[in-house]
Amino acid sequence: MSARKIIIDCDPGIDDALAITLAHGSPALEIVGITTVGGNVNLAYTTANALRLREFLGFPEVPVTAGSAGPLLRDPWNEPDARDTLAARRRTPKDAANVHGEFGLGGARLPEAVLPPRDGHAADFIIDTLRAAPGEITLVAIGPLTNVALAVLKEPRVVDWAREFAILGGSYTRGNYSPAAEFNIAADPESAAVVFGAGWTVTTIGLDVSRQALAVGRIVDRMRAMGRLGTDLLVPCVEFYGMVTADEGPAVHDACALAYLIDPSLVTLEPAVVQVETAGRYTSGMTVTDFGLAGRAPNAMVGTSIDVPRFWDLVLTTYENVAGRLGG
Amino acid sequence: MSARKIIIDCDPGIDDALAITLAHGSPALEIVGITTVGGNVNLAYTTANALRLREFLGFPEVPVTAGSAGPLLRDPWNEPDARDTLAARRRTPKDAANVHGEFGLGGARLPEAVLPPRDGHAADFIIDTLRAAPGEITLVAIGPLTNVALAVLKEPRVVDWAREFAILGGSYTRGNYSPAAEFNIAADPESAAVVFGAGWTVTTIGLDVSRQALAVGRIVDRMRAMGRLGTDLLVPCVEFYGMVTADEGPAVHDACALAYLIDPSLVTLEPAVVQVETAGRYTSGMTVTDFGLAGRAPNAMVGTSIDVPRFWDLVLTTYENVAGRLGG
Amino acid sequence: MSARKIIIDCDPGIDDALAITLAHGSPALEIVGITTVGGNVNLAYTTANALRLREFLGFPEVPVTAGSAGPLLRDPWNEPDARDTLAARRRTPKDAANVHGEFGLGGARLPEAVLPPRDGHAADFIIDTLRAAPGEITLVAIGPLTNVALAVLKEPRVVDWAREFAILGGSYTRGNYSPAAEFNIAADPESAAVVFGAGWTVTTIGLDVSRQALAVGRIVDRMRAMGRLGTDLLVPCVEFYGMVTADEGPAVHDACALAYLIDPSLVTLEPAVVQVETAGRYTSGMTVTDFGLAGRAPNAMVGTSIDVPRFWDLVLTTYENVAGRLGG
Amino acid sequence: MSARKIIIDCDPGIDDALAITLAHGSPALEIVGITTVGGNVNLAYTTANALRLREFLGFPEVPVTAGSAGPLLRDPWNEPDARDTLAARRRTPKDAANVHGEFGLGGARLPEAVLPPRDGHAADFIIDTLRAAPGEITLVAIGPLTNVALAVLKEPRVVDWAREFAILGGSYTRGNYSPAAEFNIAADPESAAVVFGAGWTVTTIGLDVSRQALAVGRIVDRMRAMGRLGTDLLVPCVEFYGMVTADEGPAVHDACALAYLIDPSLVTLEPAVVQVETAGRYTSGMTVTDFGLAGRAPNAMVGTSIDVPRFWDLVLTTYENVAGRLGG
Repeated sequence: MSARKIIIDCDPGIDDALAITLAHGSPALEIVGITTVGGNVNLAYTTANALRLREFLGFPEVPVTAGSAGPLLRDPWNEPDARDTLAARRRTPKDAANVHGEFGLGGARLPEAVLPPRDGHAADFIIDTLRAAPGEITLVAIGPLTNVALAVLKEPRVVDWAREFAILGGSYTRGNYSPAAEFNIAADPESAAVVFGAGWTVTTIGLDVSRQALAVGRIVDRMRAMGRLGTDLLVPCVEFYGMVTADEGPAVHDACALAYLIDPSLVTLEPAVVQVETAGRYTSGMTVTDFGLAGRAPNAMVGTSIDVPRFWDLVLTTYENVAGRLGG
Repeated sequence: MSARKIIIDCDPGIDDALAITLAHGSPALEIVGITTVGGNVNLAYTTANALRLREFLGFPEVPVTAGSAGPLLRDPWNEPDARDTLAARRRTPKDAANVHGEFGLGGARLPEAVLPPRDGHAADFIIDTLRAAPGEITLVAIGPLTNVALAVLKEPRVVDWAREFAILGGSYTRGNYSPAAEFNIAADPESAAVVFGAGWTVTTIGLDVSRQALAVGRIVDRMRAMGRLGTDLLVPCVEFYGMVTADEGPAVHDACALAYLIDPSLVTLEPAVVQVETAGRYTSGMTVTDFGLAGRAPNAMVGTSIDVPRFWDLVLTTYENVAGRLGG
Repeated sequence: MSARKIIIDCDPGIDDALAITLAHGSPALEIVGITTVGGNVNLAYTTANALRLREFLGFPEVPVTAGSAGPLLRDPWNEPDARDTLAARRRTPKDAANVHGEFGLGGARLPEAVLPPRDGHAADFIIDTLRAAPGEITLVAIGPLTNVALAVLKEPRVVDWAREFAILGGSYTRGNYSPAAEFNIAADPESAAVVFGAGWTVTTIGLDVSRQALAVGRIVDRMRAMGRLGTDLLVPCVEFYGMVTADEGPAVHDACALAYLIDPSLVTLEPAVVQVETAGRYTSGMTVTDFGLAGRAPNAMVGTSIDVPRFWDLVLTTYENVAGRLGG
Repeated sequence: MSARKIIIDCDPGIDDALAITLAHGSPALEIVGITTVGGNVNLAYTTANALRLREFLGFPEVPVTAGSAGPLLRDPWNEPDARDTLAARRRTPKDAANVHGEFGLGGARLPEAVLPPRDGHAADFIIDTLRAAPGEITLVAIGPLTNVALAVLKEPRVVDWAREFAILGGSYTRGNYSPAAEFNIAADPESAAVVFGAGWTVTTIGLDVSRQALAVGRIVDRMRAMGRLGTDLLVPCVEFYGMVTADEGPAVHDACALAYLIDPSLVTLEPAVVQVETAGRYTSGMTVTDFGLAGRAPNAMVGTSIDVPRFWDLVLTTYENVAGRLGG
């Protein structure tokens, strides 16, 4: 079976780096493009990090295309005066690096990239790439959904051209950005509403799944033994991301979405109608998930559980393959 | 130790009936008044049911006072034309009996009450009773919070006069009225927002607790052996309320709040800031619960778990005492 | 013809004082009660001012009853943390005296009142008074509509018992509190929504009418000649309220609503459906007024113009009668 | 002085046709591109109409580029189920032809166009054209602002590259789509919010201006004498658009914005902060216009009046020039 072709829309970001490494290392996937969006840190840094990862991991032939610096409509920091901040944000968005480090990859210090990003906007790359091979390319978004929304808004037929569209985002119980909302959706609720309403069935891997897969001590120990990949990228990322003990460690959110694409049997999915709240005072960005379809067509297949041992087995094995190629 | 004096604000309603029976039977509680509100069924029926329960259980000296027929601001059925429906609703609110039966007590058929309700409005009964004995009376609300909101709006000092204010309502994970909201809060979100913002600390027993306490088969079997109480009230209520098997049965929501008042050690409470969403398109009525106080004063103590065996032991023992007095 | 009996619900307030003086002086009206609400200044001051006016003008037999200190749901100053401010406001509401002076009557310094207000809440006074004489009492509200909303919420039948319900509030073009909203409605939009949705036809005199009737120089000159009434009340009120020139002067909003009740032929009314915006980010408190009924029943008769010369003739003649009784 | 270069973003639409004819005929303007958007009628028709006008009027060298079929986020018809309708709308938007006729040009029946539209999306045409000549091109939008919003979202620097950005849209008093909102803004409030918040100063010609310029009987009589232009385009458009009498006739909204670009002295502009309401229940799409800047930088210059005689003189003289070229 040939590899599944994917575009990764991302905002690296620690867990994005872990996810890109996984995708690159898996023979089941072929990355045909990476597109970047402002989110975990600002667009300049997410793009720079994607470029660094591309050269560090060694796939310089894959195009990296930058997209939107900030959300479709709202200021990411909820400042009261929309006018001034919208204008200001579109030019020099603020940095949101409390979780991912000032430059977005925690303690990792990859070399500066030599090659530049591709010209043009991420949304156009998505449109053009999907149009060129209808039914062949899978789009996976592991950051805010601004680029995907712009693609859908400019060219509604992308929903027909995509083989599958999967995201890491949302939660049907509790959030992490707020009690109600997960970060990727809360960062741009209107884009998420566009994307969930676009007419495709969104494979939705959210916190309910990703919180099950924690990078606990014995897992980090295996990463530590992976030469340059471990010491320069994986371990500094994971350790920056959260406290690691024998039983506890950070959730590696984005990697779950890529693991699903490598082996869909890892994740249990249930059909649901997902509505993105954009109007709430305290709930903006919540993915309101109704499993009781009552005759309605689902617009999402929502992940409810993940096979944690098999997940880590896949991830660590794949990382070890990459590490072997990179050396020590 | 003398009994704790309580006012029960309720909308009987099957689980209200189970809760009132529990409160009446417990030597730890003294019901000093019952107030009724439209909710599970309309106000005429919730009031009639409270009166029937009072006489059937045998505490005719306790006043029953009717309150609001519908929510503070919104139409309960979300009809689009607010003007026409608001006006219509305030006079002849619709019936919402899909869960509780047309008259609100499922299959139970208690005799018509002989004695009438007390004159006046529930909100005034609450204000006057609390004012007369500051620090002595506990208010427990197990229906929509309209009466309590009106009391707070007319007389803000009730929050100082109450010994404790406890509710059955809300959820910090998923709802039952909608994916986001629990029925009692969703039925009148604005009243809930008033009540949670009134300056007291609301003891909040919600679905996260009440869904743990299911009336499974062996529990219903014990009820069935309780003479008239069992056959005329408890069993027809529970069986109407949901399917009963060895492992599954309906949650007896309201009874959890009363059990907590009888024995607070049954329920684990955590401090939180609870905000009621009133603006959401899909999340209206959600109790957005933030356990991360970050220096803020909590406005709620939120139930997170209940000791199920001890709960049922308390409930069934109390019911058997009531049954003994009622006879067979 | 006997005088029309009225309850004045108000927040004096400069233009409230002018309106009460007009109502007191007119043989066409009989004030049967005054109720007060927080608005122009806080409830303590609006009540104190109503009591002062009652004794200064000389109708001590008319009961004055205090009502709500702040709006039904929202903090009047839009502070972000609803919880803290809601609780704080209900006890010690802030003062809003930029337009009406620190104590609400501008430069006027009426003697302290000797007699206290009546016990009880304004909403109950309105309910009880209307119930006692169905079809006989006109209710006119010239402040925020909180008291009227509470009355409607507690006793929906007041809408049938009132002979007429008139307000000074709203605008169908531009506001004064914001570009979209007039102060009395913006101060408590949810109460206004309750009141306009209650099932009666609200006689609505708003800014579109009241901005036509300006207290220009020659009018103030006549007031100045009115002895104690002029020098102690009218002139200090009007001059504080706004710049007075030969052509320009402040609008005496509330007086327009009372003038209408004295002589309905002064104001042109058009039927309309009025919806109060409560959800807008920039439009909260706007009275969205649709004159195109398209088969819908109107819920308001909305004032569109006032006969300015006849209005001032009525007002000044009435004031001169009052002044004659008060002396110099 | 050389002609001002303009891109016209439009949804022809009757008044769009009148505006395009005016722009084409004026030596003060040079149309460098026309972009189309769904609005008055659906995108297929607005594009077809732009193409027909281009050939009928005789400027086939000017590119016509189609853009968005529907609004950024919401369904134009406010159907309750966002999911189904969003998806459906993006493919086959509904027709809104009650005012403009089924095909958008009222009674006018221009020949089918021979030449096709340019490939690509209107937003990209706007971006690329402005980028190629910074400071030289004026963008004028006389339909819903979806295309302009997408351009700003993809390339925030367009606000610096535009010489001026003018719209026909909004109202600071009353609307035409609803009591609060004008059609072009109400058709896509979120796009309007993006556009007004983008950092440029929007020249805003709204209903307050355009309602002053009515195509009354004597004006239509002059059009009737304009040969093919009059009989095939102008007169059938205006007569379909509204009743024409000696004193009354339809407002020719879009033409006002073009007339302003030809001769800015025709329109009085005032600086203001304009906020687009997107959250209101009854006010969505309102341009809340605050002329009291209070130290804030204005984001709009808002038209308040138009010199009607000079406007019609300009329009009719220009039309006569066009008619002379077209012949009879």
